[in-house]
Formats: sequence, C-alpha cells, structure tokens
Amino acid sequence: MSEIPPPPVQPLRERDGKVELLDQTLLPDKERWIHIETVEQMREAIQSLRIRGAPAIGIAAAYGLAIAASNSDVTATSNLLADLDAAGARLASARPTAVNLGWAVKRVLGHVASTTYGSTEALRDAVWTEARAIMSEDLNMCRRIGLAGAELLQGGSVLTHCNTGGLATAGYGTALATIFMAHALGQDIHVYIDETRPLLQGARLNTWELSKAGIQSTLITDNMAATVLARGDVQAAVVGADRVAANGDVANKIGTLGVAILARHYDVPFYVAIPTSTIDFDCPDGRGIPIEERAPAEVLEFRGARTAAAGTEVYNPAFDVTPAELVSAIITEHGVIRPPYRENLAKLKR
Amino acid sequence: MSEIPPPPVQPLRERDGKVELLDQTLLPDKERWIHIETVEQMREAIQSLRIRGAPAIGIAAAYGLAIAASNSDVTATSNLLADLDAAGARLASARPTAVNLGWAVKRVLGHVASTTYGSTEALRDAVWTEARAIMSEDLNMCRRIGLAGAELLQGGSVLTHCNTGGLATAGYGTALATIFMAHALGQDIHVYIDETRPLLQGARLNTWELSKAGIQSTLITDNMAATVLARGDVQAAVVGADRVAANGDVANKIGTLGVAILARHYDVPFYVAIPTSTIDFDCPDGRGIPIEERAPAEVLEFRGARTAAAGTEVYNPAFDVTPAELVSAIITEHGVIRPPYRENLAKLKR
Repeated sequence: MSEIPPPPVQPLRERDGKVELLDQTLLPDKERWIHIETVEQMREAIQSLRIRGAPAIGIAAAYGLAIAASNSDVTATSNLLADLDAAGARLASARPTAVNLGWAVKRVLGHVASTTYGSTEALRDAVWTEARAIMSEDLNMCRRIGLAGAELLQGGSVLTHCNTGGLATAGYGTALATIFMAHALGQDIHVYIDETRPLLQGARLNTWELSKAGIQSTLITDNMAATVLARGDVQAAVVGADRVAANGDVANKIGTLGVAILARHYDVPFYVAIPTSTIDFDCPDGRGIPIEERAPAEVLEFRGARTAAAGTEVYNPAFDVTPAELVSAIITEHGVIRPPYRENLAKLKR
Repeated sequence: MSEIPPPPVQPLRERDGKVELLDQTLLPDKERWIHIETVEQMREAIQSLRIRGAPAIGIAAAYGLAIAASNSDVTATSNLLADLDAAGARLASARPTAVNLGWAVKRVLGHVASTTYGSTEALRDAVWTEARAIMSEDLNMCRRIGLAGAELLQGGSVLTHCNTGGLATAGYGTALATIFMAHALGQDIHVYIDETRPLLQGARLNTWELSKAGIQSTLITDNMAATVLARGDVQAAVVGADRVAANGDVANKIGTLGVAILARHYDVPFYVAIPTSTIDFDCPDGRGIPIEERAPAEVLEFRGARTAAAGTEVYNPAFDVTPAELVSAIITEHGVIRPPYRENLAKLKR
C-alpha cells in the first residue's frame, strides 16, 4: 500500500509562527496567502468567503481565538478568558448561520474554561493546542472518508459536482478525498468536473485542487454530464452533502439531484461522501430540509458578465434534495453505509 | 379560436425599401437593427452570427441575392445573372457547413435560371419575389409546427432548452412556436428556460423573445431542471433539433439528452418540434450523427469572464443525441408523429 501524501491543498497554515489563509476569492486566477494577525482580520476573511466550507471556517474561528490569545497582553488568566470570550463572540457572528463557526468557538472556550491554568502563558498554549487539534481531527476524518471511499472506486473516470475538496476542510475534503486517496493508492483515476453553475465552484476550485494533486481532470458544463455518462466511461459519481436526513435523503448543491437521476439511468453508482456530523437525525426525510433560495443576480451574471436582461424572473435554489433510493452508498469516516439507510445510519448515532 | 398574432420577433425585415437585420450578437443588452445595403454586408452579418439559426440564415442569403440584384446596374439579363451567380458564391461561403445557406442560394438562382426574363427589371423583381417566398413559406411552416404542438400542451409550465424561437427562423420558431401558439390560443402558459451553457442561448435569447411575446418565463441554470421537474409543476418539455435520424433519434444542443432523461424519470412528456426537412432519412440512427466538438474557450469563459485556469482540460461537445425511446412525440408542420418513429417518419418521406 502506497504512502498517503500530505493534503495537496489546505485552506489555512502556520508558517514561521504566523497563521496564513489562502484567499479563495482569488482562485483560480491567483494563489495568494494572506497573513492573519488579528481577530478582526480573521472575521473579515470568514465574512468575505476568503475561507469557506463548513469545516474550514470552524478551523479558521479556532485559530482566530489562538491569535486573540497571543495578542492579549493581560497578565491575569481571568482577564485573558474575558478577552477570549469577546473574540469568540466576534468570530461566531461573522456568518451567523454557519453551524461550524459557533461549534468551534464553543469547543475551544469550553475546553479552556474546564481547566485552571497557572499562567496566561499556559492558557495561551492550551488555546493554540485546541485549535491545532480541531484542524488535525478534521484532517484525519477527511483521510478516513477518503480511504473508505477509495475502496469503492476502481480507477477510470469519476464524475463530481461542486467543490468538496481540501479547500472546504482541513485538507483532502469529502467527495474529493475519495479521489485523492484512490490516486494515492495507485488507482489510475480521472475526474469529470461539473462546472456547477451558478457560482462555478467546480470550474474555479476543483480544477485547481486536482491539478495541485496531479490528478487528471476534464471540465464540463453541467448539462454535458448526460453525454459523459452515455459514453460509458464513468465508473461512479461522487458528491458531498450539506445535510443528510435520517432516511438517507441528501441535500446538496443544486444539480446533485440531476446527477443522481442520470447516474441511475446509466446504471452508474452514485456515492455521497460526508462526515457523520452531516447526518441530521432530527430530520426524518428530505421534505424536512429547508431549501435556501439565493439572489437572482447569481443566475443573471457571472463575475459581472450578464446572461439575461435585468428584470428577468429567476428561480435560484441553492440546494436540491436527492431521494435516498438514488443513493448507492454513503461514505463516512466510519466506513461505507449501504441501504436500508434509516436502519444503518441510526447505528452511527451516538 | 383566437386570432394568431404576427410573430413577436423576426430576425430580418423590410422597412422603407431597405432590408434590416436584428443584430443578435448584441442581445439581450441592445436591440439594434442594422441596414444591409450590400452583399458583403450580408455576408459579414451571417459570418459574425448577427443572424443565426439554419432557416434564418437561408432567408438572409436569399435577401442578399435580392440586394445584389438591385445594386447591379448592368442592362442585359445575362450580365445580371452572372452578377447573381457571383453574389451567390459569396453568400454561400459565409458559413460553409450551413446547409440552408447553399439551399437558399440554389433555390433562388435555380428559379430565375429556369425562366427567360424580358428585362433586368423583371429579373430583379423575380429575385425579390423568391426571397420573400422563402421567408413567408418558413413563417407559415413555423406557424403550422406551433399549432400542431399547441394541441399537445395544456397550459401550466413548459421546460425548454436552447433557443428555438423566431430569431432562428422567419418568425415563431420551432419548439418556441408551440408555446407562442398555445399562448395565442388562450392557454395560461409559463416557460422554464434552461440558460443553456456554454453559449447561454436560453438566457440571452429566449428570455428576450418570450418577454416580447408577453409570455411569463423563469430563467434557471441547466442543473436546476431536475428540481423544477421534481416539484411537479412542469406539464411538458419541448425542444428543437438539429438533425433527426430515420429511427427518431434526436441530435440537438448539448443538454437536451439530460432534459429527456429527467423528463422520463418524472413521467413528463418530452416533445421535439422540427420542420420535416430536419429528418435525415439517410441516417438510420443516432450513431451516424457526427458530434461537433467546439473550442475549450466556450467552457473556460462565461461571456468573457474566466471560469477556470487557462490550460484546464475541457470536453465541449456542441450537441448530444437523445435516443428515440425517450421522445414522447415529434411535432412537425405535418402534424404530431408518435412512435414507432421509423415507420411513422417514413410516411413523411417525399
């Protein structure tokens, strides 16, 4: 078995004692790392989507707290805890609906609040250690998802939709992790990348990530997926998910449902790769998942180029729901889950 | 039965004795009519896609010959015929692969060559009359396609892909004609418009045409079609075709195959609207239809805005082939054709 290489792309790194973020708003045109030296800089980076993807912004928030700890020059641990609370509130409010942001802030603050530290220095170290733990746990989880998924792939071409790569996590990603690991394990693999309108995450981010990993890919518009499947050279479709209901229904980026139906039509397996934290056991099925509708401007333009007259009526759902019966398997850090999903997902419930 | 209104949009018109073209390269941002006063201006307009769509460029070529006839100041009919031959060669070479261009030039030249004219004036009149006949025959055919298709629609929402409207024909169009006629006949109809990447004909042209006709429409990205169908409020999908094989397999704009599979999945009828001239009886099935691959730049750019890094590998087929078994009916100027297609299309063979 080959050595697993380090993640080809990570959204955040420590270098020479500094925290740096890859500015994702500039990709793929420019690869610019920005130094983050204050809580407000981190908050702005999260808010402006310089770092995006649920796990990645949780990690960013945790590092934001570490930076806050280093920047605080108070001498009493109680004052440092108060500074951390204030920083946590600022970070958590950067994108109020992002669950991972609040989760990471709570985890770091809860961890340091549960111990008594002999010095502010010890407390600072504990914050940094916890931020690094969140990062490395996420990376490890992505690696496990990837390895579980790689066992389902058998070389050849894989079709994917939206960006589910290292940029959105600590590294490797979810659906893209299965492809990274298959490649690392020696499979001769190639990826068809749906461009993923309207925001073109596939075109902008997946092409860049896969080229960094040295994996061959071919970019297509979303409406070419049927032809690619009809040609018979796709062995599997692999996507991520924003939420999975208790019965296995999958909410993911708009266009996923179409991929699932086309894959079924051509008898190609359709896999969903997720951390188990994505499973919402309180949600019995897909009907309970609210679908965010976003601004018409996303459909009416791309990077300022207009597609239709202003005032054109637009429907712009950000997500769709794929019924569980179209899902061949759900790939998690605890292995591959097969139908019946309600029963088999429930076994993962803690 | 309601009166059928004149076509809401036409690509070419005569006004105050001048031929004018709507410059489609500027749509939907600007609606600019350009005067065409010479053969070279008409050739440039065809070559630069200011007028596009197979029937429309045939009409443009015929009017180009009429302009050539008016501009020639020779006094012998034999000299005028020679001038027309030269103009025909220029026009036919504007887009060498466009069948209708050569067809229209041959038809006009063949018509005037078959008669002896007493004066150049009489010959000039004959060229203009033939150009107008090509235009009005195409308009009449589109109207008949539209009326045949309207009988299949029952109000509610229709999904369409790519531009098949008046802009590509003498007026009304093919698939869009069925919607225009349904509306004219009093059906309460609404259209979901696939934007149709990579060239966005749906977003740029259909939104404009339908708003001109006063028909309600909603623009979606191509990958939203599955969600729109899943919601259950689409009564039919209607598309055009570039070529139909003798067995009913349909070559049309990339993305059509996906629409057909999704429509079948949701048990929604999938109709193809064409003039019978689109049927290629020499082509037994879809495997015989060559699929043009176009430049990567179309996928890598979005009206000039880049979507992915230069050098990204791209697959860009311009058309796909939908198997006949996914086609609920083929709508022609001779009525609605149902399966078995090989048998029923053959009855249209002259």
